[in-house]
This record gives sequence, C-alpha cells and structure tokens, in this order.
Amino acid sequence: MTALGASSAPEGTTSRASAASLQRVQAPVRERLDEVTGEMWSAVATDAPLVSQMSAHLMAMRGKMFRPTLVLLSSAVEDRPDPSAVTLAAAVELIHLATLVHDDAIDHSVLRRGMPTLNSLFSHQISVIMGDFLYSSALTRLVSAGNLDALRALTRASTDMTIGELRQLAVTSPMTFSEQDYFALIRSKTASLISAACEIGTLCGAREHRETMSRFGEQLGMAFQITDDLIDYTEAATTTGKPTGIDLREHKMTLPLIAALRTMSEGERSRVEALFAAKTPDDAAIAEVIGIVTARGGLDYARDAASGHAAEAAKTLEALPDTVARAALFESISYVMERHA
Amino acid sequence: MTALGASSAPEGTTSRASAASLQRVQAPVRERLDEVTGEMWSAVATDAPLVSQMSAHLMAMRGKMFRPTLVLLSSAVEDRPDPSAVTLAAAVELIHLATLVHDDAIDHSVLRRGMPTLNSLFSHQISVIMGDFLYSSALTRLVSAGNLDALRALTRASTDMTIGELRQLAVTSPMTFSEQDYFALIRSKTASLISAACEIGTLCGAREHRETMSRFGEQLGMAFQITDDLIDYTEAATTTGKPTGIDLREHKMTLPLIAALRTMSEGERSRVEALFAAKTPDDAAIAEVIGIVTARGGLDYARDAASGHAAEAAKTLEALPDTVARAALFESISYVMERHA
Repeated sequence: MTALGASSAPEGTTSRASAASLQRVQAPVRERLDEVTGEMWSAVATDAPLVSQMSAHLMAMRGKMFRPTLVLLSSAVEDRPDPSAVTLAAAVELIHLATLVHDDAIDHSVLRRGMPTLNSLFSHQISVIMGDFLYSSALTRLVSAGNLDALRALTRASTDMTIGELRQLAVTSPMTFSEQDYFALIRSKTASLISAACEIGTLCGAREHRETMSRFGEQLGMAFQITDDLIDYTEAATTTGKPTGIDLREHKMTLPLIAALRTMSEGERSRVEALFAAKTPDDAAIAEVIGIVTARGGLDYARDAASGHAAEAAKTLEALPDTVARAALFESISYVMERHA
Repeated sequence: MTALGASSAPEGTTSRASAASLQRVQAPVRERLDEVTGEMWSAVATDAPLVSQMSAHLMAMRGKMFRPTLVLLSSAVEDRPDPSAVTLAAAVELIHLATLVHDDAIDHSVLRRGMPTLNSLFSHQISVIMGDFLYSSALTRLVSAGNLDALRALTRASTDMTIGELRQLAVTSPMTFSEQDYFALIRSKTASLISAACEIGTLCGAREHRETMSRFGEQLGMAFQITDDLIDYTEAATTTGKPTGIDLREHKMTLPLIAALRTMSEGERSRVEALFAAKTPDDAAIAEVIGIVTARGGLDYARDAASGHAAEAAKTLEALPDTVARAALFESISYVMERHA
C-alpha cells in the first residue's frame, strides 16, 4: 500500500503546514475540482444498488484529489485551460481509486483514510470486481471524450502500475532488493500516474508543454513516493506515538533501509535479517531497526534523494511561463516534501 | 464462473460433434488466429520475469479462441477483411482472459481448462494484479491501433461485465432471483463481450454491418450462456459420471431452476430451499434437485430459450451477403448449441 501515495500515510499525519500548502496548491482550481467530483459521480452512476452504495462510500472517503489537481493546473500553465480537463482529471482519480481498492483488497486492509475499506465493509470478492468497474468506467469516460493521447498516457501508466506492483509481489528476498530496483519500482508504481496526470492536463490548453509536464510529474512522483516511504520511518502513529513501521512489518524494503544497509555493522545487519525472517516482527524489533536505519544515515540519504527529485521538478517548471498555475505547481513540490514535517 | 463462457465447462465435456463444429467455424480464419496468438504474446511482453512466467502459463492454457474467431469472421462478412482485425481480436481475448483470471482469483478456483489457475500456482494477490495487467495491456494495444469505436465497444462491454458480476455477487436471496434478473445478468456478463467482439470485427472491413453483427453477437451470447448453464445440469463430470451441479453447489440460480420452480410442489420447493440454506450442499441434495428440475421441465424450458436466441441469431445473419464468413457464423450457432450434446 505504501507505494500508492499520500493516501497511504496514516490518518492524522498531515501536518498543519502541509494542509495549508495543499490549500495553496488547490486554490486556483478549487471550483473545477468540485466539477471533477461531479464527473466522477456521473461516470460511476448505474442502477445497480450495490454499485451505488460502494461508490457513495468511496466518494465519502475521498482523498486529497492531488492527481486531479495536477491535471487541472497543468492544463492552465499557459493561462488558457480547456474545460475538458475536468473529464481527464475525473478519469485519473477513478483510476487511482481503482488501484487503491485492489490494493486494499489484496492486502486485506481494514482502514483507508480513517474509514473502513470496501473489502472490510462488503467483501473481498466484491471489492476486486468494484476495482475493475472503476477502471472500466474511467476508460469509458475517456473514450467518450475521444482523447486518444490521454488514453495512451493513462493506459500506459496503468500498465506500468500493474507491472510495478507485480515486481513488488515478486520480491522473495528483500535483502537483495537494490536501490536501482527500488527506483524502478516507485517509478512504475507511483511516478507513472502522477506523470501521466501532468501530461494529459497539457492536452487541454497547453499542449506545447506536454513533454515538460510529463518530466515534471515524473520527478514530483519520485519525490512523493520517497517521502511517503520516509514517513513510515519518521511519523508517529496517533495511537502509539511511535513510527508505524508498516513497511518493515510487511517486509518491504524502501530507500532508508537500502541506504543504511551499506554502512551497517555485521551485528546490525543480522538484526535486519532477523526482522525480515520473522513472519510477524514485533514492535521492539521494528523500533530497533528504525533506530539503526536512523543512526546509519538512511533517513538523511532518502531525504537527500527526495530533495534531488524535488529540485529537478522545480528546475523543469522554470521552462514554463510565469502564471498562477505555475506558482501552484511550485507549491505542489513543497506540499509533497512537507508531508513528513 | 459459470457465466463466463465455454471455458467454464468442465474439461472433457466438449463432444466430438462440438469439436468438429468448432473446426468448421474456425477454418476460414485458421491462419489469422495464429497471428492473434502472436499479437497477444507481444501485447503482454515485459522484462518482468514474473509477468513472463504467468503469460506463458496463460498462453499454454489457451482456450478455444471463440471470441477472436468471431472478430475475424465478422470482419470478413463482406469478403474484404482488414488485417487490423487481428489486433482487435487479440485485445478481446486478453480482456476475456483478464476476467477469467479475476474470476478464478475471487472464487479461489484451482483448475481452469484442466490446468492449475494462476491463483493456485502463484498467489491470490498476484493473480488480481495480473488480471489488471492483462486488461491494461489489451487497452494499450487498442489505443495504439487508434480505433476509438473499438475502444468504445470494449470498454462498455468491460463495464457491463463488471456490473453483471457485481449484480451476481449482490444476490443474497437466490430464491427470489427472477427470470428477468437472470437475463439481465447473462446479457451483461456474457453477451456483452461476445456482442462487442462481433461489432468490432465489422470495423475492419464490414462497417456497414456493425449494428447487425452487434445484434447477432448479443443473441449468440445469450444462447451461449443459457447452454453453459444447462451443461451444469446435464453434463456428466468425467470423474464421477454425474452432473457437476457446480452452480447449485455455489448457490447460483440459473434458468433451468428458475423455470422449474414455477410448477414445483411445496415439498419439492422446500428441497430447493434446503439446498440453498446449506453452506456446502452434499451430492445427494444436488442430485435430488437436478432430478426435480428435470422432471418439472426446467431443462426443456432453458433449451427452448437457448433455441429462441439461436434462431434470432440465425435470422440476423440472413441480412448479410452469402459469404464463407457468413456460413462459418451460421456454424458458430450450431457450435454454441451443440456444446451440451
């Protein structure tokens, strides 16, 4: 789950600074975002009561709408946004929701954004098919819009996300999971959809910046995911006051640990190995490994990596004209980086 | 599973007559079908070893390629088939495969076409994401082909299939599942994709017959599914020599039982209720209900319904010019009806 974005951070971890930052990012497209929600509702409207119930639940647990925000801002970087961006933004969020629903289903997660998941409320079977329905509905809407370029970007991103997820599920010996493997994974699992969101936004009013915004989105997405993985090591859960360490619990190797392993002593390394060998590592083992990773500079390394991508993202934006949308996109970088504040 | 087509019939139930019939249906497009297989392989090619392993397994358990056959024949009904139909045929089969993979995953099925399912060979999680990958790959290929009409037909069919599946999963009191409910279900679960296959074939060489072939496919698909559901009551499993009754075991209400319930005595009806109340009905209870359904004319009723749709399908074909493809399409009706012979 962790690799799927802001929404996977435990509820309550969004700092005030981060919330204020998100508000600034979304200010220029606030009204349009409400239209996006409307489009999402209409895309999933059916006369099947079960589908309506589930859609209503998903809409109630609606996340930060970060990807639709990026679509709308990208379409406005030349100050002539085309209203059709709303449809593309709705499709991106539905695709994102579809991946979250499948993710929760296969992980048997109980909560998402502080609310019960579909699989816990309904059933595992139902949520697998509901994920399929959300994805199909998103594509049906895109096809109606007749935008082949947007379809190309989004079907490619979807395929990338599934390949990323399969790569992750295929990891049998996490201790050999390299930094290169990690970057390939988060590029396909997270950066691909954020990049596609930025790219397709430009198709509605700023087509000349398509390549630029695709690159911006990729860098932003990398920073986003590295920061998300950092949160797992740094952010205290509201209930326990200790870092959640969910990734370690689920035997997921992320950048802080990959970096720290390089300078660990034999003894420290064996503690990590013991954790990965334990079927359900206990809190003490997790706290110990978090301590080792911190002491060995793993968090600093990951922060530097995230900052590097953030800086690249910012540099990419400099090629754009100075507009309100560009300013909000700059702010989106701060938002992504501040989430672990 | 039952509602997903020929492939869900137990292995070994394909009669010789039916196999010969399928050969005649496929004869005019035999070589093209090999190209379809090639396109399917290339659509799912990645450098992720896990994905390649799973794709190889799916290709080895390849079914009868009935839907791709319909795409190719439909494109040839004016004797000027466009080679691009091969791409559409590959996409249809990949979408069909995606639904089978998800179906097996959520049903925890162990065998499909006499081979282990992906979920049994790999894992449940992996097969859910692999289904997503197959679907995304199919759409990516369709987008590359740039055929918006085909995309429209197939995304709509996919959405229909998910809604159908969700309707089925939502049935909490099968005893109140009506004939109307049943027809709505099989229309969305089965007829939609078969209809879309026939429709998109015409986009490659016979566009003037688009509506006709869409209607033909719908009728054929209805006949297909009713026959499939009949097989569950009539066809002896190779191992036991008795009808499999899998639908009854899984508490699925299909046409033979819906029809028979109308004329059952109170006592007979209570036997059916007892079966649906039992979590895992035993063989004797299933055999008894099959006996009641047969005696009360449920099988005859379903056969008549299938024949009605078959006759409609045949009537639709009469509007087409007399070509080799049309003859093969007529034969496809016999094939669909003969599967329970």
